[in-house]
Amino acid sequence: MRTLSSFALVTIVVFALVCETYGDEGMYLFNDLPKSQLKSRYGFEPSEAWADNLRLSSVRFNSGGSGSFISSDGLVLTNHHVASDTLHKLSTEDRNLIDQGYLAATTADELKAPDLELNQLVSIEDVTDRVEAAVAKDASVADATKQRRAVIAEIEKESQDKTGFRSDVVTLFGGAKYHLYRYKKYTDVRLVWAPETAAAFFGGDADNFEYPRYCLDATIMRVYEDGKPAKLKNFLRWSDKGVSEGELVFVSGNPGRTQRIFTVDALKYLRDTRMPYVLDYLRRKEVTLQQFGLAGAEATRRARDELFGVQNGRKAYTGMLAGLQDPKTIATKQQREEKLLAVIKADPALADAAKAFDEITSVQSEKKDLIGQTVSLRSRLFDLALTSVLRAAEDEKPNGQRLREFTETGRESLVQDLLSEAPVYRDLERVKLADELARLVEHRGGDDQLVAEVLAGKGPRERAAELIDGTKLDDISVRKRYLEGSLDDIQKSDDAMIGLARLLEPEYRRLRTINEELDERERQAYAKVTEVVSRMQGDSGYPDATFTLRLAFGQVKSYQQDGKTVSFATNFGGAFEHEAKHAGQTDFDLPKSYAAAKEALDLSTQMNFVCTADIIGGNSGSPVVNRSGELVGLIFDGNIQSLTSDYLYTDQQARAVSVSGVGILEALRKIYGAESLADSIGK
Amino acid sequence: MRTLSSFALVTIVVFALVCETYGDEGMYLFNDLPKSQLKSRYGFEPSEAWADNLRLSSVRFNSGGSGSFISSDGLVLTNHHVASDTLHKLSTEDRNLIDQGYLAATTADELKAPDLELNQLVSIEDVTDRVEAAVAKDASVADATKQRRAVIAEIEKESQDKTGFRSDVVTLFGGAKYHLYRYKKYTDVRLVWAPETAAAFFGGDADNFEYPRYCLDATIMRVYEDGKPAKLKNFLRWSDKGVSEGELVFVSGNPGRTQRIFTVDALKYLRDTRMPYVLDYLRRKEVTLQQFGLAGAEATRRARDELFGVQNGRKAYTGMLAGLQDPKTIATKQQREEKLLAVIKADPALADAAKAFDEITSVQSEKKDLIGQTVSLRSRLFDLALTSVLRAAEDEKPNGQRLREFTETGRESLVQDLLSEAPVYRDLERVKLADELARLVEHRGGDDQLVAEVLAGKGPRERAAELIDGTKLDDISVRKRYLEGSLDDIQKSDDAMIGLARLLEPEYRRLRTINEELDERERQAYAKVTEVVSRMQGDSGYPDATFTLRLAFGQVKSYQQDGKTVSFATNFGGAFEHEAKHAGQTDFDLPKSYAAAKEALDLSTQMNFVCTADIIGGNSGSPVVNRSGELVGLIFDGNIQSLTSDYLYTDQQARAVSVSGVGILEALRKIYGAESLADSIGK
Repeated sequence: MRTLSSFALVTIVVFALVCETYGDEGMYLFNDLPKSQLKSRYGFEPSEAWADNLRLSSVRFNSGGSGSFISSDGLVLTNHHVASDTLHKLSTEDRNLIDQGYLAATTADELKAPDLELNQLVSIEDVTDRVEAAVAKDASVADATKQRRAVIAEIEKESQDKTGFRSDVVTLFGGAKYHLYRYKKYTDVRLVWAPETAAAFFGGDADNFEYPRYCLDATIMRVYEDGKPAKLKNFLRWSDKGVSEGELVFVSGNPGRTQRIFTVDALKYLRDTRMPYVLDYLRRKEVTLQQFGLAGAEATRRARDELFGVQNGRKAYTGMLAGLQDPKTIATKQQREEKLLAVIKADPALADAAKAFDEITSVQSEKKDLIGQTVSLRSRLFDLALTSVLRAAEDEKPNGQRLREFTETGRESLVQDLLSEAPVYRDLERVKLADELARLVEHRGGDDQLVAEVLAGKGPRERAAELIDGTKLDDISVRKRYLEGSLDDIQKSDDAMIGLARLLEPEYRRLRTINEELDERERQAYAKVTEVVSRMQGDSGYPDATFTLRLAFGQVKSYQQDGKTVSFATNFGGAFEHEAKHAGQTDFDLPKSYAAAKEALDLSTQMNFVCTADIIGGNSGSPVVNRSGELVGLIFDGNIQSLTSDYLYTDQQARAVSVSGVGILEALRKIYGAESLADSIGK
Repeated sequence: MRTLSSFALVTIVVFALVCETYGDEGMYLFNDLPKSQLKSRYGFEPSEAWADNLRLSSVRFNSGGSGSFISSDGLVLTNHHVASDTLHKLSTEDRNLIDQGYLAATTADELKAPDLELNQLVSIEDVTDRVEAAVAKDASVADATKQRRAVIAEIEKESQDKTGFRSDVVTLFGGAKYHLYRYKKYTDVRLVWAPETAAAFFGGDADNFEYPRYCLDATIMRVYEDGKPAKLKNFLRWSDKGVSEGELVFVSGNPGRTQRIFTVDALKYLRDTRMPYVLDYLRRKEVTLQQFGLAGAEATRRARDELFGVQNGRKAYTGMLAGLQDPKTIATKQQREEKLLAVIKADPALADAAKAFDEITSVQSEKKDLIGQTVSLRSRLFDLALTSVLRAAEDEKPNGQRLREFTETGRESLVQDLLSEAPVYRDLERVKLADELARLVEHRGGDDQLVAEVLAGKGPRERAAELIDGTKLDDISVRKRYLEGSLDDIQKSDDAMIGLARLLEPEYRRLRTINEELDERERQAYAKVTEVVSRMQGDSGYPDATFTLRLAFGQVKSYQQDGKTVSFATNFGGAFEHEAKHAGQTDFDLPKSYAAAKEALDLSTQMNFVCTADIIGGNSGSPVVNRSGELVGLIFDGNIQSLTSDYLYTDQQARAVSVSGVGILEALRKIYGAESLADSIGK
């Protein structure tokens, strides 16, 4: 599933630019669309209105995905697996939305998500000059980091104060460009319809990242303003036809991160160090969460959403690593890099760019030494404690000197997170924290002084239980008190988890500073490489993905695998056949609602389809539109051959996988009895 | 489950001696029984006949467990989970012995295990002087390793030629003692009865290493000689009563490995390096095997036996590591070590022993540098290839210079393994090998020359598929041809897997030599420590476990947990209650045979019980006998509190868990309709 994995991203910084594009490669900026490519390849010229409506109909889910407005009265379409975080938070032992799905009979029944934030991109402004001007030419890395942070905070605050929009400065092309993105925020988002997981994630972990697929990986929500369904000017009309072979389609969404510009040494760091480390971590979490679930149905439910995310990440990373381990991948990258280096070395004026490659290499080896050095324990209660501790200290500083997430422009999101009503399960927290403490001991060694202080003479399990028992941070009013309180309140707190966060705070800050300075050095180096590339390329390229809105394009296209043609689309009939072929495997049982509707369904209706558009994690939930700008599908996955697209786009077999728009309508009407909802879509 | 884990053992060498014993601690040699302890603690004096019958009734399963003779006509009792390797190998898509269990109606229906070897310990001889004499006092480590290997091979061969018994020289007390163990071998072993896994492993992974338990973890086999049931002089009579609180019991089995004498630095190496490494490995295999099983019921069946082993190891290691990460554990060990060091440092004559501690410390740090450096890919087909390649080369050498497993005395076991009729599943092999190749790339780095040669320009998956497609080693006749062929046949072979083994052979030998020399250095160092300890201790202690026959003793004893008493025994009624309490969880569904027999069963019959005897992995299947030498139970597990017993015995809550003998008889008669089998037991 193409969600942005919340794991693994933390220390991979995201910026870059691509030297050459291949086929339908590219995730383009909305203020720099690939007009010449579209014209030459497809004879298509997007009008301004076409592009504006698509942009303004697209939304970003800040939980890590994409979506689109699909009606004038606020309906939002996204993937079930993007919504599942919310479905999980809205579920209880007695109301399992994940298993059973949901359909609001009236707007009064629409369920409010506890902490969802949706962003609609209203404008983009180039602020590169202002950022550059604020960073002294010969500043040290530490100073440059601070200066850049300060000017970005200033620009964001100024814009937010002036426009009222969420304002984010986005670093593009590895630090060669800075764009100010202004977003209209929607924080009142409610659940309208979700199918059962058995329909949405049909085929489970086995079928994940595979194709052909038969998943109804869709969920409909609605944005509200002032307690009423939002009135939208921009939304997507729906095509009433399925897609056809060769059809040109567009994807508008928020790809999370690519590493296409990465130097060969940076890729080797990923291959030999970073990805194996992340995979060990993900497998560890997978086993821990599975174990927790063995305690019974309710335990399984509590752990499931996180387990799904972890399994999805594990499968994606396994594929990405496999691609990097294939000697052909590095050989291809090496060839391209050598071409670039030849140009650079031939021109004495480009000595800086040559040095940049060495700088990137040396940053990789410093990162290698830092691997595993983290004190960010993955537990919600610890996270709340650390955030509270940091918030109190950061608030004492001027806005421009704060850690990014504590600046004034980020306050609303911070508060939303801290005061989320999402349930916290102490039993699950205990198990997770015990494992995180064990991991801390493993990474720092049992003789480490900080470890000794953290454990306080107890084993990880015993200590975790003590910490969880000794915290009240699962109580929103307690969190609110800390949020509104002073640094002194934090320092005097006898909450066990706050105490742990205080203990770890200095090391957290030390490591964060080191990592941010490494990021700064990489940023400066990649910016220099980018200059050369842009000069070579002439035409507009696209920057590596940054979890901001991009346009990709491609063809609906079948492909060859093991000597057979894999058809571009599947249909409902195929879903029933797929179920029959896997009888006895739980993950391949369609929900009862399908069986009940089988007679009524038009089994030839398209269900899923593939295209060559260039997508990546974060694109989940992106609308797929046709030349007329009508929605034809909903991105939810890439096939297994596409997993290398983090660093290398190909279109031989790699495909983006979508739920078909007509399939969603057919299901709403015939399976879920949601006629009036279906009627309101696209209008 | 207390099987010897086939993972993780490979490079942990096993030897040691314990300074002081606590309570019922101890795994004693049959030629040095704890007579004074038994007399003083329990007023029990074992007669020679008692001890001889127990020893000669005990068997070792070379697949990694223990068992006992339980009738004059060759019946052998062991755990279902010890037998499961055989059950798996005897199963096919259409005959799933693991799920369905088995009962041979007549001896003609008893199913022959494809590669099981059972050992009965017939005599022990001290050969320390001869081994010591053969190793020159001032030999280099490399020479000492060779000299020791040579004299051991010589002693073993001489003994085998003279007596016809399997003859193994066992290194005890960290190299201070060498004993020659002579075994009668049984290689024709047949399956008589096995319950369903749902009965044997009731509660699954969730209940594993927990107590109270309700598992019928038992299987009955029969040894044959000359195609007929073996006639046995020594076997165990069965008690017709359940055990009672406080009762003295004995366990006779083959504990695999303990680390009780390990220095604090050696334990820290386990805590900070070795165990985290092994756990990463186990979790990786767990996820890989689970993924494989998602393909369907048959795939699940194929992977299951290995998956169970991996999950069992993962749970055991998690507990062991948690114990070591508890600062109290190392503090306890540190205290004891300081006492010992004080004695050593006070006596200039013991300078060698003081140096030995430093030597052990420096070996740990060398081991740390070697972690992950292995080319032993865990795939049956690769293993067959490497063994074939090594065999051909080793056979060119004189017996005394060969790697241990290729000496003449080991030949029969080697041939049994190489020519085993156990099925090899190419689909599973492909997935396992792909993962192992990926792991090789991770550990050595993608730029490593050997890695490049192994991958031959392809990604791990592609290369694994090519290797599996290109080998015929799943054909026994092909393996036989290599086994009977010359080195030249191996060198000229165009079998892809043989080619890979040839490529990896030099690195395998290089790493093995390094590891064996580290072992030698540790052996010499621990031998010096042992001398001091023996002098301090005066009385006979026990050596760390070596997967050879030992006697442990203890009391049947309830314990306190979370303020409640956990009763020493459970019964059949409890099993049904436990099932009801976990309704809806697959692993807690008792088999249909239980439900059908519920009326007939005496629900108060003991099912499982606990005692304080000192056991460890490898003890699985050990008989538990009373003062009269009658079987009262069958070891199958330790509770979660016992998982630290690798390095620290305690008896506060730690308990060994057994299946009750009367429970087995009740099940045979009432659930499985095996009256005549039950009648023949103990007679």
